Amino acid sequence: MTCFHCTCDATSGNARALSYQTAHGCFRTPMFMPVGTSATVKGVTTDQLHAIGSQVVLSNTYHLSLRPGADLVAEAGGIHAFMNYDGPMLTDSGGFQVFSLADTVKLDSEGLTFRSIYDGSYVRWTPEENMRIQELIGADIAMQLDQCTPYPAERSFVAAAVDLSAAWARRCLAAHARPDQTLFGIVQGGMELDLRLHSVDMLRRIEEESVAAGGRRFGGFGIGGYSVGESHDVMFETLGTVARALPEDRPRYLMGVGNPTTLVRAVREGVDMFDCVLPTRTARMGTAFSSTGRMNLRNAKYARDFTPLDPACCCSTCRNYTRAYLRHLVKQNEMLGAMLLSVHNLHFLIDLMARAREAVLAGAYEEFYRDWMASPAAKDY
Amino acid sequence: MTCFHCTCDATSGNARALSYQTAHGCFRTPMFMPVGTSATVKGVTTDQLHAIGSQVVLSNTYHLSLRPGADLVAEAGGIHAFMNYDGPMLTDSGGFQVFSLADTVKLDSEGLTFRSIYDGSYVRWTPEENMRIQELIGADIAMQLDQCTPYPAERSFVAAAVDLSAAWARRCLAAHARPDQTLFGIVQGGMELDLRLHSVDMLRRIEEESVAAGGRRFGGFGIGGYSVGESHDVMFETLGTVARALPEDRPRYLMGVGNPTTLVRAVREGVDMFDCVLPTRTARMGTAFSSTGRMNLRNAKYARDFTPLDPACCCSTCRNYTRAYLRHLVKQNEMLGAMLLSVHNLHFLIDLMARAREAVLAGAYEEFYRDWMASPAAKDY
Ligand SMILES: [Zn+2]
Ligand SMILES: [Zn+2]
Repeated sequence: MTCFHCTCDATSGNARALSYQTAHGCFRTPMFMPVGTSATVKGVTTDQLHAIGSQVVLSNTYHLSLRPGADLVAEAGGIHAFMNYDGPMLTDSGGFQVFSLADTVKLDSEGLTFRSIYDGSYVRWTPEENMRIQELIGADIAMQLDQCTPYPAERSFVAAAVDLSAAWARRCLAAHARPDQTLFGIVQGGMELDLRLHSVDMLRRIEEESVAAGGRRFGGFGIGGYSVGESHDVMFETLGTVARALPEDRPRYLMGVGNPTTLVRAVREGVDMFDCVLPTRTARMGTAFSSTGRMNLRNAKYARDFTPLDPACCCSTCRNYTRAYLRHLVKQNEMLGAMLLSVHNLHFLIDLMARAREAVLAGAYEEFYRDWMASPAAKDY
Repeated sequence: MTCFHCTCDATSGNARALSYQTAHGCFRTPMFMPVGTSATVKGVTTDQLHAIGSQVVLSNTYHLSLRPGADLVAEAGGIHAFMNYDGPMLTDSGGFQVFSLADTVKLDSEGLTFRSIYDGSYVRWTPEENMRIQELIGADIAMQLDQCTPYPAERSFVAAAVDLSAAWARRCLAAHARPDQTLFGIVQGGMELDLRLHSVDMLRRIEEESVAAGGRRFGGFGIGGYSVGESHDVMFETLGTVARALPEDRPRYLMGVGNPTTLVRAVREGVDMFDCVLPTRTARMGTAFSSTGRMNLRNAKYARDFTPLDPACCCSTCRNYTRAYLRHLVKQNEMLGAMLLSVHNLHFLIDLMARAREAVLAGAYEEFYRDWMASPAAKDY
């Protein structure tokens, strides 16, 4: 199968089961992607990532380009060789971090200027420079540079970010050249449905113009700017319509979302891919996802609980360790506590999406959805 | 083979290769034991411990008895079940931590009283209570309660500690009852050879009296009170004589020593077992043992060094990751840096002792020793 070829294996309602080919193997959706911010999924080895069924691993262009530097990653043979992960990988553009981490971001007609969180130095990114950096890092999937707006935000501000993101999408698609890497466009528009649909239209038009001129297509589409502070109800008012307005022959990736129930609901709306730091971040705080809802392992009720973390889970943490032991590790701030909970939490979301895929293949996503929403875990938003 | 049976497979000069049977399998010496202070070797999974050839894992009675409590560990099925390690285990008595961590330790004719570092509460230990705690924790090997003296120390103070440790050895041996656990006596005496030899004599006499009265033997002998601030030359003035004064039919365990060169030298003096937090502690600081001496991964010279950490090492870290990547992880304070360096550093010492054993079996320890001392790694004290 040629690279970046996308097959739809089945649908069930709006839910989809895709297969997507990359130079580092095929991934299958619905899918949750572990986040390896600085070329490492915090506390988890790449052997463990394979063992828990990880497919695509995400890394952050903002952090990598500043430390250790994109040129160094390229010199190492690219991100896969650098971090010893031979599966498919994706880099975000870093735009989200630029706007959320930097004190001041200076936008101009050509690009943006910000100060590094590491040493305060000024960094200049144009869409073309961002593409050059992501090509150096060398993931299988790059994301266009975009502007994500917070919530709530003035409509005029959101509209301007939509236009800027579209202009950058055009320039990214024109500049992107690496043949073993594909580029995803990103939809913005906050909670304003008409702006969202306008954003989708512009991406479609940009792609048509590119193809007409002998250029490339997008490999898929990110849906950015959700989960930025709005309630879940507000997100789901527009998410499905936006997702389904996108081309149906390529993946739809809801960026930065990792609550189990949100994933189950978003798949039902036609979303295929997810990423979030939530599973590893909550693990480091001593919290576990579970089939009965989130568990805080610091809780005294687990002190003499010698049962597995989640009896319904088959990950190595749940097969080998008790709640009492995990609580002990968490209370003593032992690294192993964060390590074992990270493995479990990642496995939980990866396995949830694997089971969602099975439901789609069986034409039974609606039952999967209803079962989840009726389960004690559904409250885990 | 019956439990706690010790066979001498070979000697080479004073160096020995022993096999020692426990209820959790046989261990072979010379051997380095990873330290799992709070029922976890920091940053290393038990799967990884097996993969790097770990035999005995040590845990700390001081920490475990205070958090989560020896009764809780017993309720979990003992330390092996609690931490999911099915190989042989050893607990120290906690005496070292009592004297080194507590602000004030009150010694009386019956035992000692100290304040917990966790909550300041008063804790009372007699030798009998210490045995009860170590039996609850349930390692394969328990250590007698003893008093370790600092360096330098007044001779009269060291002499008193030798007498106290001998009195406690007698009471520990009389009190110790768990049939699937053995007890090691401990030699003290600082840098005073005559006090050391007196300590050995008393342990021999205590054991003879115990056996004559139908009681138990020691399963082996700890050599405590070295590596407490003295130079290596000072330690080696007496270590060999002390080690060889001990019964030759059981293991000699030099407590708290983890420098590669010290291990190589001590084996030549007739020592069999070692433990130290050094490999994992230095790993967390970004430092690696190597066949060319210690390496500080923070050093800028490794930034673009895409070679393995130690080309002579076959551990998973050295097979899969470059110095440049490890430096990146260490500089970014990523957990994975400490994890990968801990695996390597433990493997380094475990493998060093495995090769020492092969040399003894081949009757060629002197060549092994000379090769090590001529190698660039010998400076790593
Ligand atoms: Zn699990
Ligand atoms: Zn190694």
